[in-house]
Amino acid sequence: MAAIDHFWAVIPAGGAGTRLWPLSRSSVPKFLHDLTGGGRTLLQDTRDRLAPLAEDRFVVVTGRPHREAVLGQLPEVAPDLVLAEPAPRDSMAAIGLAAALLERRDPDDAVMGSFPADHVIPDPHGFGEAVRTAVEVARDDWLVTIGIEPTFPSSAFGYVHLGEPVDGHPAARHVQEFVEKPSVAVATDYVATGRYRWNAGMFVVRPTVLLDLLARWHPAFAADLRAIAAAPERLDELWAGLPKIALDHAIAEPAAAAGRVASVPSAFHWEDVGDFDALATLLTGAGSVTVLGDDDLVRPVDASGLVVPAAGRVIAVVGLDDVVVVDTPDALLVTTRARAQDVKQVVEGLKQSGRADLT
Amino acid sequence: MAAIDHFWAVIPAGGAGTRLWPLSRSSVPKFLHDLTGGGRTLLQDTRDRLAPLAEDRFVVVTGRPHREAVLGQLPEVAPDLVLAEPAPRDSMAAIGLAAALLERRDPDDAVMGSFPADHVIPDPHGFGEAVRTAVEVARDDWLVTIGIEPTFPSSAFGYVHLGEPVDGHPAARHVQEFVEKPSVAVATDYVATGRYRWNAGMFVVRPTVLLDLLARWHPAFAADLRAIAAAPERLDELWAGLPKIALDHAIAEPAAAAGRVASVPSAFHWEDVGDFDALATLLTGAGSVTVLGDDDLVRPVDASGLVVPAAGRVIAVVGLDDVVVVDTPDALLVTTRARAQDVKQVVEGLKQSGRADLT
Repeated sequence: MAAIDHFWAVIPAGGAGTRLWPLSRSSVPKFLHDLTGGGRTLLQDTRDRLAPLAEDRFVVVTGRPHREAVLGQLPEVAPDLVLAEPAPRDSMAAIGLAAALLERRDPDDAVMGSFPADHVIPDPHGFGEAVRTAVEVARDDWLVTIGIEPTFPSSAFGYVHLGEPVDGHPAARHVQEFVEKPSVAVATDYVATGRYRWNAGMFVVRPTVLLDLLARWHPAFAADLRAIAAAPERLDELWAGLPKIALDHAIAEPAAAAGRVASVPSAFHWEDVGDFDALATLLTGAGSVTVLGDDDLVRPVDASGLVVPAAGRVIAVVGLDDVVVVDTPDALLVTTRARAQDVKQVVEGLKQSGRADLT
Repeated sequence: MAAIDHFWAVIPAGGAGTRLWPLSRSSVPKFLHDLTGGGRTLLQDTRDRLAPLAEDRFVVVTGRPHREAVLGQLPEVAPDLVLAEPAPRDSMAAIGLAAALLERRDPDDAVMGSFPADHVIPDPHGFGEAVRTAVEVARDDWLVTIGIEPTFPSSAFGYVHLGEPVDGHPAARHVQEFVEKPSVAVATDYVATGRYRWNAGMFVVRPTVLLDLLARWHPAFAADLRAIAAAPERLDELWAGLPKIALDHAIAEPAAAAGRVASVPSAFHWEDVGDFDALATLLTGAGSVTVLGDDDLVRPVDASGLVVPAAGRVIAVVGLDDVVVVDTPDALLVTTRARAQDVKQVVEGLKQSGRADLT
């Protein structure tokens, strides 16, 4: 797979992964974990699948508390391109900061692709081909999303509504609109039409196009980001005033309405791994109990489900089906795959009762 | 409650409590644990309920590895009366050793009562009255058992079959026979007759009567026990050759057939606490989840059952009913109340796979 000239991989490494508690914590969030058992963390996997395309052109944007961990996990990335947000400001600020930096560093030819650090994509080749196509479209000043083919009518993801093919780019489609997480019934209709794709938050765009689109709807926001890139010492001062808004709401939705967004529909296997049910599906192997970690520690008797022995202790599970047991040194979760979404209630409860240290 | 002259309380403190793994271990067996959350261990509770009757007349027989722990938990008991078995030899050897010692120490008037260290009896007054009656019967040279009134047709306990009242002791009954653990169907018939009681392994008897009964069916066994009492330095030498047999089989069953056994049927509340289902029943309070330990550590969401946070970690249980979670520093059990008996399979599996250190 050949590298793409002037292609810059941007990795916003944020998000707590609350529904993966107690494995994922605000102190050690989802992207810093090896959730596939393959020996690499989600962040490292994200870099690995982009390296053939971007070579050493990476920008990582993460929270200040996680910068050291990110540097440790990604020795291949230049430290000055691992940016630390002074405080969480959602995805528009994070990705916009990378765009402003790249606009100055590689003003004429840069195309950036932004890819969340915490997704699982077992098909790097299919992914790479989609990115290559998206970059070609983006060079013509489109804001390009990669549209994931739905494998079921999920109510957990937003969708992009595909329009007609893009002139000169037959593999790309106009995006008519972004739609928020629908009900399962609505999602079923979407999937049946064949004209909807999951929005996985993967955007490919020229940095200047991104910032100019932002300037159209949020001019002060774009100006502040460009000011930070011009004078990095002003980061703390200006960052505090930035709006807390997702890129989707800030620019993708209005730009779609303005006919500026294209999508590259793709069929590579993609997993959000949003909760332990999804993780169990991803990992399910031959045994009745799926183990993320050392198999020898898990002793099932008439049991099935997912067990994560992350504290090094022996775990016996007797007579429970589709159970989820996640064992960490200071907190233990016992639930079922069907109730995996409700783990966030536990995290909220801990915060409310003064045990935010565990979240 | 007045003390009983020359009454000696014997506490055989043995048994691993395998079905209470991982709380109960061979290194720290059931009787050394506080299973009621009352601040005292089962062993301490056993001593406490006997102290009003026996004052300071206690003999405790335990395994060598546990003698230090027993001494630590029972500072009220004279150290020379905490006997250490060189190796496990079942209940006949343990109780017989205590009998041989008491036969020399208080030859004419001693009556001993032997009470397992790992039972729960929330009604010390009812218990004390039963013991008082049993001692009066035992002074007339009966081997006396205390017969527990069945509260359900258990297949987990042996039964005593009551006969006619004992002459001169209207509160006691002849024991026609001891019956092994029956099926639930057979147990249901037993309970319906009103003439069966659970055999809880509580025996009251004059030491000399016990040893003479033993001498009748196992003369060498009785002689060896008396030889140890006469020359304690011979303990290791003689102990190795003692038969591994329960008191029930060695003397209670043949003595019943010979018309030498009486029972005092009693109605005090008694719990064997043999597994986590029984423990959950014993402890069930107002909350949906019963906690043995620090309530603050347990975070249930739509859950019920028993949680034991014995490792000090926070435990979240989401969407599971009648679950059992037992958390210890090196091993974790997750099961259901219905499958609580099958915990012994885990323990067997650990032994077979070289992890006996955890059992």
